Amino acid sequence: MAGMTSPARSTSRERTTRWTAPVRYAETDQQGVVFNAHYLTYCDEALAAFCIERGLGAFAEDVMLKSSTLTWAAGVRHGDRVDVDASCERVGRTSLLMRFVISVEGAICCEVDTTYVYAPDGEPMEVPHAARAVLV
Amino acid sequence: MAGMTSPARSTSRERTTRWTAPVRYAETDQQGVVFNAHYLTYCDEALAAFCIERGLGAFAEDVMLKSSTLTWAAGVRHGDRVDVDASCERVGRTSLLMRFVISVEGAICCEVDTTYVYAPDGEPMEVPHAARAVLV
Amino acid sequence: MAGMTSPARSTSRERTTRWTAPVRYAETDQQGVVFNAHYLTYCDEALAAFCIERGLGAFAEDVMLKSSTLTWAAGVRHGDRVDVDASCERVGRTSLLMRFVISVEGAICCEVDTTYVYAPDGEPMEVPHAARAVLV
Amino acid sequence: MAGMTSPARSTSRERTTRWTAPVRYAETDQQGVVFNAHYLTYCDEALAAFCIERGLGAFAEDVMLKSSTLTWAAGVRHGDRVDVDASCERVGRTSLLMRFVISVEGAICCEVDTTYVYAPDGEPMEVPHAARAVLV
Repeated sequence: MAGMTSPARSTSRERTTRWTAPVRYAETDQQGVVFNAHYLTYCDEALAAFCIERGLGAFAEDVMLKSSTLTWAAGVRHGDRVDVDASCERVGRTSLLMRFVISVEGAICCEVDTTYVYAPDGEPMEVPHAARAVLV
Repeated sequence: MAGMTSPARSTSRERTTRWTAPVRYAETDQQGVVFNAHYLTYCDEALAAFCIERGLGAFAEDVMLKSSTLTWAAGVRHGDRVDVDASCERVGRTSLLMRFVISVEGAICCEVDTTYVYAPDGEPMEVPHAARAVLV
Repeated sequence: MAGMTSPARSTSRERTTRWTAPVRYAETDQQGVVFNAHYLTYCDEALAAFCIERGLGAFAEDVMLKSSTLTWAAGVRHGDRVDVDASCERVGRTSLLMRFVISVEGAICCEVDTTYVYAPDGEPMEVPHAARAVLV
Repeated sequence: MAGMTSPARSTSRERTTRWTAPVRYAETDQQGVVFNAHYLTYCDEALAAFCIERGLGAFAEDVMLKSSTLTWAAGVRHGDRVDVDASCERVGRTSLLMRFVISVEGAICCEVDTTYVYAPDGEPMEVPHAARAVLV
């Protein structure tokens, strides 16, 4: 769909926002790796950073999770720093597909594809044009 | 203070509400024991159970934490079931002191003394007489 | 694949283990609903319960998450009790596909499909026949 | 006790290590403030940072919590950045008292005093002289 990509934001580099944080001790479990649920918390923060960088601070609070697929490649340990690269893959009428690539020192640990529905009042609404222009 | 104890609730047994739950895997850290912060979550649930048992369901949401002292005696592991015995030690004008004894199979693991302020609108208010009568 | 279903466990009812817990206050976020990451924690506990009920206590600790897809249908609130119905949909050579249906009072809130790899020593290994027989 | 202060580290400024992080959305509860248990997680990270800055990386993993007192002054919200200033108030034979001052833009939100026991093998041991010299 033509409206889904913004010619002004043409390179992969520009389309991505990185959120980064050291792994917290409390996030590891007794196997010594980050417990699986925390990856969704990292993505949540990465979405917020992605939106703030595009001047869409409130947008992150106006979307609801519809579905999320996580694929793990390697465990993450205390002492590691996780980098989460967030990008918007697609914007539909009322939804958007975000991709989060979680890595440690360049090695991918987990990839997450999440579909959000824009629902500022709890009901799906059309994604505003202003947002659409800067998301992808 | 005379109003602090209710003659109708005379025994230690009656004054206590037990909240219990199996330890969750996600609560353990890489040392294989429950991470320290989760003890406060257990106490939070125990306070809610304590209030509900006394017909004070909303009360637990109308109090703010003022201070909390945790003293650990032993670690808790995945596979353990934690029992939290909650009791109200004292009710002041706008505050109350709760005691939480956390144990596994009768062995005490952690004791927590927490002072809450009654502040349904964000500001300290006198604890209602109806609540006072059933708390201690 | 013939070996994937056990004729002795023929009904849907028998194949499912229910894990249940009241929502904890700490699990809600400022939108008043359970924060998305906690659904994976619920599933983790449900897998453990599923394995224990089948005499496979250690099995839950010998698997690694490979991928997980969550699909949300409704929010869950403090005061709700979540029921998680766990079933094994398929057992492959070294992996298994589990399905978790999370509901509140019979209404589905979230469905989770998770693929685990059997890797007791960190490397994928064939799922033992004894386990295979009771999983599905 | 004379050995408790190091003349080489004479000012309050030098004695303190700051750990800082933006509040995560998942840390807020439905009252819109950081849930109380997370303050202990912040302190845990601050202790690690404090030790690393003094070349005592392993030390933070060799101590056990004995007791912790938290005193809250104000709530912390999503969008805030928490600063945790960690300092060692006292070193005993086998234990140490740490103080954590948690603030947002200079306003104190919570103060935490925690006593740790040095127990690299699970049993209390004398704090090594090398560590003692750089802690306070």
